[in-house]
Amino acid sequence: MPELRRDPIVGRWVIISTERGKRPSDFGPTQTAKKSGFCPFCPGNEEKTPPEVYSIRSDGGRPDTPGWDVRVVSNKFPALQIEGELLRKAEGIYDKMNGIGAHEVIIETTEHDDDLADLPVAQVARVIRACRERITDLSKDKRFRYIQIFKNHGEAAGASLEHSHMQLIATPIVPRRTVELLNGFLQHFQLKERCILCDIVDQERTAARRVVAENEDFICFEPFAARFPFETWVMPKKHQASFEEMRDDQILSFSALLCETLQRINVTLNRPPFNFVLHTSPLNEWKEEHHFHWYVEIMPKLTKVAGFEWGTGFYINPTPPEEAAEHLRAAGAFLPNAGRNGVGAEAPGDLLREV
Amino acid sequence: MPELRRDPIVGRWVIISTERGKRPSDFGPTQTAKKSGFCPFCPGNEEKTPPEVYSIRSDGGRPDTPGWDVRVVSNKFPALQIEGELLRKAEGIYDKMNGIGAHEVIIETTEHDDDLADLPVAQVARVIRACRERITDLSKDKRFRYIQIFKNHGEAAGASLEHSHMQLIATPIVPRRTVELLNGFLQHFQLKERCILCDIVDQERTAARRVVAENEDFICFEPFAARFPFETWVMPKKHQASFEEMRDDQILSFSALLCETLQRINVTLNRPPFNFVLHTSPLNEWKEEHHFHWYVEIMPKLTKVAGFEWGTGFYINPTPPEEAAEHLRAAGAFLPNAGRNGVGAEAPGDLLREV
Repeated sequence: MPELRRDPIVGRWVIISTERGKRPSDFGPTQTAKKSGFCPFCPGNEEKTPPEVYSIRSDGGRPDTPGWDVRVVSNKFPALQIEGELLRKAEGIYDKMNGIGAHEVIIETTEHDDDLADLPVAQVARVIRACRERITDLSKDKRFRYIQIFKNHGEAAGASLEHSHMQLIATPIVPRRTVELLNGFLQHFQLKERCILCDIVDQERTAARRVVAENEDFICFEPFAARFPFETWVMPKKHQASFEEMRDDQILSFSALLCETLQRINVTLNRPPFNFVLHTSPLNEWKEEHHFHWYVEIMPKLTKVAGFEWGTGFYINPTPPEEAAEHLRAAGAFLPNAGRNGVGAEAPGDLLREV
Repeated sequence: MPELRRDPIVGRWVIISTERGKRPSDFGPTQTAKKSGFCPFCPGNEEKTPPEVYSIRSDGGRPDTPGWDVRVVSNKFPALQIEGELLRKAEGIYDKMNGIGAHEVIIETTEHDDDLADLPVAQVARVIRACRERITDLSKDKRFRYIQIFKNHGEAAGASLEHSHMQLIATPIVPRRTVELLNGFLQHFQLKERCILCDIVDQERTAARRVVAENEDFICFEPFAARFPFETWVMPKKHQASFEEMRDDQILSFSALLCETLQRINVTLNRPPFNFVLHTSPLNEWKEEHHFHWYVEIMPKLTKVAGFEWGTGFYINPTPPEEAAEHLRAAGAFLPNAGRNGVGAEAPGDLLREV
């Protein structure tokens, strides 16, 4: 059973995965992902993963057999464990609890070599729908307070398997970064009775300098205080607290803008490794009162986080977000699939039906 | 002039270094440090760095000539700029100010190929003394609120020059991580009228499981809620708020334990890349009331920080700190210089005089 431990000074929780128990010799001098010819996420290898917890199968078919479009399975090496009780305990002045949670993998495509950005918008929309369904389902488990969806693309971003996938981790505590965001939203609301991210969207649309692209429902821009070069946010233009509140038509327009954004990043930065994280409302009793506005943060891995950043939480960004936005806007002319699959265009009706 | 910008939701400040202004093509697919034969930190090349602001020269000699033991110069590409006014400004709902600060480099040795861990304790003590003198001097500048000393060792830890050095950045605001620490110290003090890190030192010495080594004044242990495998803290056993309060004899025993700790890490993990950061009291008016206890955090770079960590601030540590401590204790038998230069031994009087 992994253990959750709380830092006694700043209150940060960490997951100590005792069962992985890495020894000094497990950390090589260079950490290259082992690439074997075998991929557990490819169709036909369904029995090599834990059983599927959800799938989208437009042509039908039984679970754990080929024929799926998107497949969600438990992580074979989960950071947290689904069975058991929380059991909060003290160890002298320290606090700990059992590492309870869920850790799932969302396999985005049957094609081993396709990246998320290369998929047709309708397929990206299926992936996003699968995320929505998993959040909705897992939020019924009252032990969980937050669900984090994220993607590590490329070795430098921490991906250990090539085949394009996202991950989901449900945690029994609201993570520290989410608490900071919640406090920020709440503070602004108490002062202004408005959502701070709605205010930000307004200011960005007026200033226009940092906006990369938008469609009817969603906007993509470079944040004013970007920590990383080409850090990019995608969010609903109208207030929406939780990702899982998205309607089917919103899923389609979100997928179109997300796909377009990733393509712009690929064109501009030559397919960089990146991390993608979803920030959304916590679950259950935490949900109502905090005026959260969900958004997705895309962080291309172009620079290394070093001692100063670790020590201070202060980031040095060598590319002003205004310049990054200019490059990403200019990339519009070179999008590989512009017009072909709905990117940059209004979502056509047949795509909507297909989702 | 670099710009300091504040994230409007969570209040995090970032440095946007407009003058570096990196374009997309500046980020290569692989970021290998360019190794030329020339090193600006080697003796004889003093004119290739900005003028020295401090040096230790046991044999005398003029500034910016060979003959130094430790040399401190301004960073040639500073993240913050020493000249100018803060000029706090609004940009709609956003906050920004001029990027005022100091950014210095502490060159630890004249020998291009020696790492900090390889130096005689007396030389490490000179480096630490140089750090103390620079903090004391810069804290007279009332624009500064915090001074961060850190070290990036190895390319994976963000080092761009091989020749062993530390860096110092003075900032006009107290960084977010320091504020979190200050709040943690203050909260515990208000509750218990004791320092939380003094309590932690007590509990660790009693439990002993996570202790790596100690001498009369300092202790080294793996923290209970370590974020990273082999994350290691070194700190004074008796309460001391600020690093720069260290007396000369304490500098020597700190240097001995720091050196020994780095050697244990090198033996155990085959000379890994690492980051080293000093957490110490903020300057001036922030200093008195917060009950800070200074410490050094050493973070070997063995795993990659990925989407989950970025999204949540929640870390997954695959090596329990108790196991890491066991490995580091066992490394004691294999320390390269044990006994030779004071490592693991009581500090001999001649070393003390030499510092």
